Amino acid sequence: MAGDGELKLLGLWASPFVTRAKLALQMKGLSYEYIEEDLSNKSELLLSSNPVHKAVPVLIHNGKPVCESSVVVQYIDEAFAGTGPSLLPADSYERAVARFWAAYLEDKMVTPWARWFSVKTEEEKAEAMRQAIAALGALEGGLKECSGGKEPFFGGESVGYVDVLLGGMISWVKATELLSGAKIIDASKTPLLAAWMERFCELDAAKAVLQDVAAVVEYARALEARIAAATPDN
Amino acid sequence: MAGDGELKLLGLWASPFVTRAKLALQMKGLSYEYIEEDLSNKSELLLSSNPVHKAVPVLIHNGKPVCESSVVVQYIDEAFAGTGPSLLPADSYERAVARFWAAYLEDKMVTPWARWFSVKTEEEKAEAMRQAIAALGALEGGLKECSGGKEPFFGGESVGYVDVLLGGMISWVKATELLSGAKIIDASKTPLLAAWMERFCELDAAKAVLQDVAAVVEYARALEARIAAATPDN
Repeated sequence: MAGDGELKLLGLWASPFVTRAKLALQMKGLSYEYIEEDLSNKSELLLSSNPVHKAVPVLIHNGKPVCESSVVVQYIDEAFAGTGPSLLPADSYERAVARFWAAYLEDKMVTPWARWFSVKTEEEKAEAMRQAIAALGALEGGLKECSGGKEPFFGGESVGYVDVLLGGMISWVKATELLSGAKIIDASKTPLLAAWMERFCELDAAKAVLQDVAAVVEYARALEARIAAATPDN
Repeated sequence: MAGDGELKLLGLWASPFVTRAKLALQMKGLSYEYIEEDLSNKSELLLSSNPVHKAVPVLIHNGKPVCESSVVVQYIDEAFAGTGPSLLPADSYERAVARFWAAYLEDKMVTPWARWFSVKTEEEKAEAMRQAIAALGALEGGLKECSGGKEPFFGGESVGYVDVLLGGMISWVKATELLSGAKIIDASKTPLLAAWMERFCELDAAKAVLQDVAAVVEYARALEARIAAATPDN
């Protein structure tokens, strides 16, 4: 988009965290150069742009890097405040509520979900999955609170910050359901979240950005095999 | 402060997270009613204000609760933007840099530091301490980056968001040094952070708010004893 300066996104197609950045850019209608990284052979640009974590996503705006998916999404919203919809509300109290649920999502759902992939025993996997699913009960309440109880998204009538953070995870939620046999977002337990997920997937930005679930399943299987091979048995 | 509405803070004197909220309120020059909670017998106000985590700090502004220390500090900065100094920079890129280092501080230093109190074996304690101290090397670089390399605080010439988050931990850093025998913020390894800590402690807001270190040591000893009594040996 003319006048917005040069935007580059360093990513990995499978990463749910990169998907968050892609969703925010897409929703804002910003054009950018996407550079796929090979995490087994990271580029000099990635290493110099994110020397602390050496991880994707990195958004580079006019040569200046922004790292960490939640920071990237907030940056896109603030640096391009005049472009496209706002992801965070204008009201400071509503912004605090959105940030509270964003932190909840990361700590209580994303962290145990990620652990599901790194632990080896059936017991550890079951416990990680139990924690991730348990977190959704309160998140259902968060959807009610953020949206005023009747609107379709965490952001209210339109998609907001928490929608982008959770939306970026959708293909992985579906892939993890296929891999684990557990229903994670279950319409009989969290009907608002289940309806939210269907609604989110119908958005143009989601159709353009969300990964193919079968491809994520294949990627996750290979990842699990690599983790198993790299971890001692006891 | 007249016109700002009613502010209440539900807290616990020893909590470093509550101290962050107190520092932000103090730096903004806001007056508030402080209510000390008894965590073994939580008030109805706490349970109804933070039903998800049932934890302090909770800031109640005109009857509306804000939870989670980092969310509370950002809320104070935004809701009282016209009062006292700004904690987050006006520039969106500088704000992203501050948020990056805030997230780093939480994930890489605060999380292993908190684990130090909850694990039992000497090996686990040593590993948690090693991780917390290792995080400070990069944080020293963060202080350089945030402050432009020469200014006294993460916020530049004056105290900012990251200063408040780290500043709230200072009495616990000093108490943990006394309890563990390890030097955490060591002038020979992280001279900028060591100078930062001295400078921060000289601020009027820090003098008014930071806990007495000896009292925190006593509190931490009692906490460790309670954790040990509540945890099975294997």
